[in-house]
Amino acid sequence: VEPSLEGLLSDVAEGRLAVGEAALTLRRYGYVPVGEFARLDVGRAARKGVPEVVYAEGKSIEQLVAIVARYLEHSPVVLCSRIDDDQVRAVGAAVDAELKHEPQSRVLTLRRPDGRRDERGVVGVLAAGTSDAGAAGEAAAMCRAMGVTVVTAYDVGVAGVHRLAGPLDELREAGAGALVVAAGMEGALASVVAGLADVPVIGLPTSTGYGLGGRGEAALLGMLQTCSPGLAVVNIDNGIGAGAMAALIARAAVS
Amino acid sequence: VEPSLEGLLSDVAEGRLAVGEAALTLRRYGYVPVGEFARLDVGRAARKGVPEVVYAEGKSIEQLVAIVARYLEHSPVVLCSRIDDDQVRAVGAAVDAELKHEPQSRVLTLRRPDGRRDERGVVGVLAAGTSDAGAAGEAAAMCRAMGVTVVTAYDVGVAGVHRLAGPLDELREAGAGALVVAAGMEGALASVVAGLADVPVIGLPTSTGYGLGGRGEAALLGMLQTCSPGLAVVNIDNGIGAGAMAALIARAAVS
Amino acid sequence: VEPSLEGLLSDVAEGRLAVGEAALTLRRYGYVPVGEFARLDVGRAARKGVPEVVYAEGKSIEQLVAIVARYLEHSPVVLCSRIDDDQVRAVGAAVDAELKHEPQSRVLTLRRPDGRRDERGVVGVLAAGTSDAGAAGEAAAMCRAMGVTVVTAYDVGVAGVHRLAGPLDELREAGAGALVVAAGMEGALASVVAGLADVPVIGLPTSTGYGLGGRGEAALLGMLQTCSPGLAVVNIDNGIGAGAMAALIARAAVS
Amino acid sequence: VEPSLEGLLSDVAEGRLAVGEAALTLRRYGYVPVGEFARLDVGRAARKGVPEVVYAEGKSIEQLVAIVARYLEHSPVVLCSRIDDDQVRAVGAAVDAELKHEPQSRVLTLRRPDGRRDERGVVGVLAAGTSDAGAAGEAAAMCRAMGVTVVTAYDVGVAGVHRLAGPLDELREAGAGALVVAAGMEGALASVVAGLADVPVIGLPTSTGYGLGGRGEAALLGMLQTCSPGLAVVNIDNGIGAGAMAALIARAAVS
Amino acid sequence: VEPSLEGLLSDVAEGRLAVGEAALTLRRYGYVPVGEFARLDVGRAARKGVPEVVYAEGKSIEQLVAIVARYLEHSPVVLCSRIDDDQVRAVGAAVDAELKHEPQSRVLTLRRPDGRRDERGVVGVLAAGTSDAGAAGEAAAMCRAMGVTVVTAYDVGVAGVHRLAGPLDELREAGAGALVVAAGMEGALASVVAGLADVPVIGLPTSTGYGLGGRGEAALLGMLQTCSPGLAVVNIDNGIGAGAMAALIARAAVS
Amino acid sequence: VEPSLEGLLSDVAEGRLAVGEAALTLRRYGYVPVGEFARLDVGRAARKGVPEVVYAEGKSIEQLVAIVARYLEHSPVVLCSRIDDDQVRAVGAAVDAELKHEPQSRVLTLRRPDGRRDERGVVGVLAAGTSDAGAAGEAAAMCRAMGVTVVTAYDVGVAGVHRLAGPLDELREAGAGALVVAAGMEGALASVVAGLADVPVIGLPTSTGYGLGGRGEAALLGMLQTCSPGLAVVNIDNGIGAGAMAALIARAAVS
Amino acid sequence: VEPSLEGLLSDVAEGRLAVGEAALTLRRYGYVPVGEFARLDVGRAARKGVPEVVYAEGKSIEQLVAIVARYLEHSPVVLCSRIDDDQVRAVGAAVDAELKHEPQSRVLTLRRPDGRRDERGVVGVLAAGTSDAGAAGEAAAMCRAMGVTVVTAYDVGVAGVHRLAGPLDELREAGAGALVVAAGMEGALASVVAGLADVPVIGLPTSTGYGLGGRGEAALLGMLQTCSPGLAVVNIDNGIGAGAMAALIARAAVS
Amino acid sequence: VEPSLEGLLSDVAEGRLAVGEAALTLRRYGYVPVGEFARLDVGRAARKGVPEVVYAEGKSIEQLVAIVARYLEHSPVVLCSRIDDDQVRAVGAAVDAELKHEPQSRVLTLRRPDGRRDERGVVGVLAAGTSDAGAAGEAAAMCRAMGVTVVTAYDVGVAGVHRLAGPLDELREAGAGALVVAAGMEGALASVVAGLADVPVIGLPTSTGYGLGGRGEAALLGMLQTCSPGLAVVNIDNGIGAGAMAALIARAAVS
Repeated sequence: VEPSLEGLLSDVAEGRLAVGEAALTLRRYGYVPVGEFARLDVGRAARKGVPEVVYAEGKSIEQLVAIVARYLEHSPVVLCSRIDDDQVRAVGAAVDAELKHEPQSRVLTLRRPDGRRDERGVVGVLAAGTSDAGAAGEAAAMCRAMGVTVVTAYDVGVAGVHRLAGPLDELREAGAGALVVAAGMEGALASVVAGLADVPVIGLPTSTGYGLGGRGEAALLGMLQTCSPGLAVVNIDNGIGAGAMAALIARAAVS
Repeated sequence: VEPSLEGLLSDVAEGRLAVGEAALTLRRYGYVPVGEFARLDVGRAARKGVPEVVYAEGKSIEQLVAIVARYLEHSPVVLCSRIDDDQVRAVGAAVDAELKHEPQSRVLTLRRPDGRRDERGVVGVLAAGTSDAGAAGEAAAMCRAMGVTVVTAYDVGVAGVHRLAGPLDELREAGAGALVVAAGMEGALASVVAGLADVPVIGLPTSTGYGLGGRGEAALLGMLQTCSPGLAVVNIDNGIGAGAMAALIARAAVS
Repeated sequence: VEPSLEGLLSDVAEGRLAVGEAALTLRRYGYVPVGEFARLDVGRAARKGVPEVVYAEGKSIEQLVAIVARYLEHSPVVLCSRIDDDQVRAVGAAVDAELKHEPQSRVLTLRRPDGRRDERGVVGVLAAGTSDAGAAGEAAAMCRAMGVTVVTAYDVGVAGVHRLAGPLDELREAGAGALVVAAGMEGALASVVAGLADVPVIGLPTSTGYGLGGRGEAALLGMLQTCSPGLAVVNIDNGIGAGAMAALIARAAVS
Repeated sequence: VEPSLEGLLSDVAEGRLAVGEAALTLRRYGYVPVGEFARLDVGRAARKGVPEVVYAEGKSIEQLVAIVARYLEHSPVVLCSRIDDDQVRAVGAAVDAELKHEPQSRVLTLRRPDGRRDERGVVGVLAAGTSDAGAAGEAAAMCRAMGVTVVTAYDVGVAGVHRLAGPLDELREAGAGALVVAAGMEGALASVVAGLADVPVIGLPTSTGYGLGGRGEAALLGMLQTCSPGLAVVNIDNGIGAGAMAALIARAAVS
Repeated sequence: VEPSLEGLLSDVAEGRLAVGEAALTLRRYGYVPVGEFARLDVGRAARKGVPEVVYAEGKSIEQLVAIVARYLEHSPVVLCSRIDDDQVRAVGAAVDAELKHEPQSRVLTLRRPDGRRDERGVVGVLAAGTSDAGAAGEAAAMCRAMGVTVVTAYDVGVAGVHRLAGPLDELREAGAGALVVAAGMEGALASVVAGLADVPVIGLPTSTGYGLGGRGEAALLGMLQTCSPGLAVVNIDNGIGAGAMAALIARAAVS
Repeated sequence: VEPSLEGLLSDVAEGRLAVGEAALTLRRYGYVPVGEFARLDVGRAARKGVPEVVYAEGKSIEQLVAIVARYLEHSPVVLCSRIDDDQVRAVGAAVDAELKHEPQSRVLTLRRPDGRRDERGVVGVLAAGTSDAGAAGEAAAMCRAMGVTVVTAYDVGVAGVHRLAGPLDELREAGAGALVVAAGMEGALASVVAGLADVPVIGLPTSTGYGLGGRGEAALLGMLQTCSPGLAVVNIDNGIGAGAMAALIARAAVS
Repeated sequence: VEPSLEGLLSDVAEGRLAVGEAALTLRRYGYVPVGEFARLDVGRAARKGVPEVVYAEGKSIEQLVAIVARYLEHSPVVLCSRIDDDQVRAVGAAVDAELKHEPQSRVLTLRRPDGRRDERGVVGVLAAGTSDAGAAGEAAAMCRAMGVTVVTAYDVGVAGVHRLAGPLDELREAGAGALVVAAGMEGALASVVAGLADVPVIGLPTSTGYGLGGRGEAALLGMLQTCSPGLAVVNIDNGIGAGAMAALIARAAVS
Repeated sequence: VEPSLEGLLSDVAEGRLAVGEAALTLRRYGYVPVGEFARLDVGRAARKGVPEVVYAEGKSIEQLVAIVARYLEHSPVVLCSRIDDDQVRAVGAAVDAELKHEPQSRVLTLRRPDGRRDERGVVGVLAAGTSDAGAAGEAAAMCRAMGVTVVTAYDVGVAGVHRLAGPLDELREAGAGALVVAAGMEGALASVVAGLADVPVIGLPTSTGYGLGGRGEAALLGMLQTCSPGLAVVNIDNGIGAGAMAALIARAAVS
């Protein structure tokens, strides 16, 4: 194991380690202050509660199993995104962890048997239409992996904006500290929700649409242009990123 | 004056014109069927009721006055778009026409003293924000020049979508046969209106915004992506085009 | 069933419903004015005559059948776009409706046995070339589903603009109140038609072409740039949107 | 004044208002549930603490003064962005409010004499270089207007990433609940900070740079592509939006 | 058969056709002057010598055979581009024509047994690399179908510009009246050739390349930016268009 | 003066120059074959007849005068493009040449007193609208400088395509061997003309338009997408390039 | 064999070759000075040490074998990029060369049995993540083929910038004269490394990412925008180009 | 002054500093290993020899003078880029340094009186045309500031590629270890030079051009697409970056 910064300094103080060798160690591995700083302070990953995420698409089963196993050693929860059924079976057979597979979102959540964590915070996840549910589900899985309760409202497209007040009221009553709004096409749902809600909203543009701007560009641009305060965005189809951001916000809101 | 097609054929029939010369005439000017077809049938411009439009920006005062004067001979109403104050004064001094100048939209409407036309149809013009009023006004001026009554509702941004029902109700009661919706930023107002209204909507994206997509591209893409039926768009800031389209629709709707 | 707004207010007036509970109801479902407004006023969908449209591509047969069945309960006519043969067979076997399948346009129109509606209006649909016929057909199917007669003129590419007068003359005689012009490549046909016709034209750019701008961008830009009045556009390959817009215009023109 | 929803319903219950008239009122203004919902519940604006923002650029002094005065009636704090010196003087002379002008960021903050609000939360604002300070300052002004304490660290460009630990440590000790990172060029600072910090980070790309991607596009794309969790972005140079988002997060984190 | 314009006028002159009916005929088919003009003057297609071209990709064998057969009735030479082996076999079996199939360029040239035409002019076709040979071959096939002799120089990439003088000298001696230069990547060969040659050069950018700009955009932009006089371009991979243009030029140069 | 290749070889043959020195000379100046090849063969510039062109915009008067003077020594005709009035006066005062200044196109043509050249060939230059006349004029000036007669037809926009046959007929009778078509907006005129004319057409897209694609991109894309054979394009507003290409074609067509 | 320039001049000097014939030879092949210059001076390829590279993708086995065989005659080392297993087997069976196949990078290096070259220089190759290893490996293979020692450090993503000092220290101690940094996503690793390292850095953006800018554009733009001195870039996924550039630099650094 | 790492460790070893305080120091400033690593190892800036560069455009004279003065304390040479005449005068009056102002490139080089450095290495700077000389000069100034001799060859455009051998020969004889090639338009000069030269080439695309791709995009794309080995690029107009890269390479090549 790596010596802690204090340990190393103690060794120097007590003459067990020469100054030159200590300096060399610090320089060679090169990450003392920042790394130490993070690690000793309980550990950034642990404190932040953001699990490791493995992008499964394009990885061989051997690669995937090896990476997941290594990550599980350091992180009580690991997510695999863009995973297919064969990969799920192989990972499930290879590691000792509680598995949750969500086929529509292609997410697999692995939780180490000893990986209990405190549950805290609520995130509301809204999807404009059926085809936005995949990205929304990825965001929801990330939130749950971070110990956050998720309340969902799918299929609340902008064509029926007058129907939003009900779901938003329910999300407020559920105590949602942040919202993720997944929307493709023109992405207007995110703007509309940000104009009505009083908690931060993460816009999650999805690659739903057709013709010019139809691979999510129109949705992304629309969200970037919004005049509603309290909206920030992640990249197209980046459910993992949207979920992590919303969960961080929601957890802090109840601390 | 050019002979009409029938006149020319009569000349041939009655031997006043040789076959070869008639053929040469038809070929040389080359536009008999389509041109005749339009002109003899009362004239496309007159029938359609679309006035001539002069884009004033970048034209010298001499050029502008000459073009306006020539257009006024054939068209009872002429519009100048993107006109500045000096140009307005010069044109006003030079031609014998009733003038209406709208500085915010930079439109000048000229109506020949003998240019009375039948008034018919109603168009509703909505603008999302203050900075969309210029383009909206250009559309309104075009509608009025085409003999259409205009009802406006400005500053009805998407941030207050729940406030739309009132204005839309009034536009319906006023008998609007088509709507123009001018919106910049993410352009969501056009989608929302098209989801609520039951008449055709012309989306008029404006170059209001900032950053990526902020010169109207986000608004245009958003309107193109909309899932609301009954919405078609014109180019960014093309108030003239939006007004002409809406007026054509609205006039036909009461015929 | 939801109480109507008047019903709810009557209940309050007559003491059957407490003020607080009424306010809660209004707030929770949150869509009283706009929703009521639409529903009580005969219903927007019914009045507008725009059928529900299901985008079939990428949906499982189970999903598709379920959605179509649910939509048919509320809408006498339902369209499926981008549908394949297996989906057509499955939907046909599962629902009680009159079916019309147009393979080239990949559209399936379902009409409830009790779904008779008044036929009104005429739309002309033009396609520049053979490869634009798919998008044009989608527009035509949408028009027909909205009770509008469709007159078509395919393969009238811009290379033979001098041949346009004939078809346009026929469309006029047929009483077309709006035109849809499907064109890929440089999309010039829409501009040319809008310069000749005296009814509103909906430009439908198609993803026909090659090289730079060849997936419909050149056609879309060209239509947006046109200087012909009376032309508005929908997104690339959006035949459904073009048809709905044209049908709304054409129906109003004969009211 | 508009009657509250409960007031209106009481009038109906007690016979002071006919059912039909009440229904008309609700429909005409069309915003009962959502609007009421927001207004009666103390008011979204007040609760959210987001002040009104006036984009001053391009507005005449008359327009600007009028808008600011109207906004100040409903909002205890009003911001003017992209304001110039003449506008500042004119607004200062016209309204009765405490003024704070920040020339580099071109922001003017107006606070009504009676506009005391509870101070809560801390936001850290970092700028990569000197030329990002304008956008960063806009974000900081927005945070302050929302009652949030701002701690800044400017000129911490990515070329010296090894110097980040110190400032980040100070921001943590100051209790920052959210960070805004303003960066142009390749925008890498936001990614790096999000990889090191344990609070949500708002990426604020700025239009600093040159050549391809140099108007902020590279910075925006880079932030959208980041693999660091806990980063969401606003549009290029949108300091107002970044500040509002960060302030909402930071305020909730101490509630 | 349609009457010629002179024929029709003679009928009018001699009383065999009423004036009204003649006007109707002219108007209905609407293409008298231009159409007549082209047809009577031997026919544009025949005079220009540009054969009909059928884009085979995506067409069913039935469609393709039908179109080719119809075209062969009016045009002594027909080209099929982007054709595959099955289509070649089917077309060959169905029509009575001399066939030439060039698999690398995927072109099939069909020549009617009676389709002899005068051979005239020489075009030089250069390709920068092996992967540009397909597009270059398409251009060469088009030239040959137009009765033009083709001299080729393939694999003369810009990396060896000092080797160009030899091939260019040979092309001059062969009497080339125009050059087609097919080049992908940065497309520099076209600029360099235009700087050295003294005949018009048609730049044919090809979709050879990788990364940013690698689908022919860099080549196209480079050719558009060239400072060498005597270079004009066609779209990416448009060998047919490049060949037609070069052949027109070369044929005229020896007339 | 540089020795000719033959001269140098003669010197070697006759012992006046050592082999090593000759090799050094050839290598050092490095352009023997190609350079010689061009120069000895009468000279590319002279043979091609393409005059030198100086882009005046942004050059100081001193720079401009110096460059023009140097060019005039080698080239009997020199063009200055994008020139302003001050520059015209200064150049006119400084050099001994016949001047022709065309203010609308901002072109100045200088012809050396001894610079008589054979006149040959005819080019037709068409402009779609008033604002395309500048680019068209630049092309015309280049043609004239190359000894080619220019016939113009301005203001023949696509809105009146049925009016094209007349002008095209006149251009044919004038013996035009190539056409330049300057068009902005959607650029359709070039496609239409190429579909009707039987000589090569050079498309010259102009930066006329508005909104998306309005700086000439839509016109350029449209011309690149055209399905009319016999059309090639130059870059936006590149009248010089269009003129040079057309003149080369037209001169060869009468040789 | 071609005569050397000196040989040819000697022939002229000694009367074995007529002046005219010598001039013709020089002109016809047209590449004397530059070509000679390169070839006689030991040969550019040999001196530069850049092996020939064959892009295998899309080539038939016959084509590939033929090209490789021909290249091996002139170049002691040949690389095949984007090669698949079948192609490797076929090439291996057909040529007499030492083979090295790297499947992850899809590179095959062939070395002629007599192809010994001096080894010189060290290049460090860094990859940000697992998915960048392919492009990095291509660069490494190119370096090795040029006789350069390669030291690699993979998986050193920017999320752990504080871990860079160690690897960079090792690369320095290994004497790396240039670095290649392969990175996708936002590409920040290249900027960060260039800010820390004191040798030239070649940025190699990879097509790793998602959403807007995710095919390498964001990485490329980010590297182009970097403010770190000593960084230049190649195109997306162009490992061959990055390796060649780095190897040239590193070899010169030890000369 | 900050203690060195060894100094700090010595303090710990000798009991002058407590372990906890030392750890705090390391953590708080957070940059020990990397920072120390750089600083103690003589200092990156000093060793690399890259001077500080101040982007003057948009900075007030006060700001500029202050920054330059501060930089001069740590760096013996400072460059100001994009500087205007007023700024030059003000900086010159304020600091004690040897000044070199190059107006065409808008660069000011300041050298501290005590700022002597060893001169080493040669860089060749080529510019395609007159308008590329500004960017080329910026690169040259950067090279000189880094103690590198610069040999220039301006106005060697690709139109005369056969004239390149001479200048390249001279650059080789001058011992150039790297080349910078500044080119706008299609940027082909960089590819051509990289195909002929045997030292690394830095492509410097410039914003010279017109129409599509004319602000340097075509030049940049062309350089990225090049198939010549030994070419890497910097962003458009980034002469500073090109110069720094080339100087680093050239200095190492003579070490």
